[in-house]
Amino acid sequence: MDRDFDIREIGPEHFHLAWPIFREVLARGESYNYAADLNLDGARAMWTSAPYRMFLAQSGDDVLGCYKLGPNQRGRGDHVANASYMVAESAWGQGVGTALCEHSLMQARKAGYLAMQFNYVVSTNAAAVHLWLKHGFAVVGQVPEAFRHPTLGLVDVYVMHRML
Amino acid sequence: MDRDFDIREIGPEHFHLAWPIFREVLARGESYNYAADLNLDGARAMWTSAPYRMFLAQSGDDVLGCYKLGPNQRGRGDHVANASYMVAESAWGQGVGTALCEHSLMQARKAGYLAMQFNYVVSTNAAAVHLWLKHGFAVVGQVPEAFRHPTLGLVDVYVMHRML
Repeated sequence: MDRDFDIREIGPEHFHLAWPIFREVLARGESYNYAADLNLDGARAMWTSAPYRMFLAQSGDDVLGCYKLGPNQRGRGDHVANASYMVAESAWGQGVGTALCEHSLMQARKAGYLAMQFNYVVSTNAAAVHLWLKHGFAVVGQVPEAFRHPTLGLVDVYVMHRML
Repeated sequence: MDRDFDIREIGPEHFHLAWPIFREVLARGESYNYAADLNLDGARAMWTSAPYRMFLAQSGDDVLGCYKLGPNQRGRGDHVANASYMVAESAWGQGVGTALCEHSLMQARKAGYLAMQFNYVVSTNAAAVHLWLKHGFAVVGQVPEAFRHPTLGLVDVYVMHRML
């Protein structure tokens, strides 16, 4: 059964709550293009500086996941949203990714975006690809060998998209 | 006949030479996703801050065009280059775009990149699309309605790519 948790918007002053999840993601190195030496200050700036907004999933004191929402492009492309998601390893398989995705789609609609785009979905990240397909995203692009996977070598990256 | 000109790398102290071209691009609003109120300082930061490098095409005192070269992603995606190009309206049809493209491919190879990717080629920008196709790029993605064209409304954007 899915776990009971809340998702709320947070500012830079609460970013540290999510930092342990970032460290897991960086250590795995299988899904994000972040530099392995990304530190807390750098990550906080990327995730909480305007125009980006950050949301956190918590169950009591347990931090289960987070996502970032913002425009995928500036200027004449800022009607398309972009989002990035992370789920704590201890919370995998509990519906957190699904809840974050649905929450982000709702927030993006509320903010007036017309579509959502992911630029860099690692094709071997089956759980993520499956989740986005289930939530109405389509693969609209496939970039050959754009990600250096730590164990699989150069793998393709998908561009995924859906209207809102 | 193509015009005789040099292409050289420049630093932030020479960015102002290219600023008139940026103003033309911003005024047309047909190819870049830059905010209409982008100013010189903002543009200079985007184009000349590490890891990005900027190159300028000049014929005597005439500034004909410029391009920016850098990694398309950080971390595990930084083996793929990205580049952005601008040609002064007064220099259209003189082979400047072709020369900038070829120069950038050479510089990208020299810098060790394995591929080059453009994330945001406005599909109605026929001159650009034609130029990239001629230089070995393929459309590897098409994002529906991702650009608000000033006269055509919402138009598609291409992701284009080639190995180096």
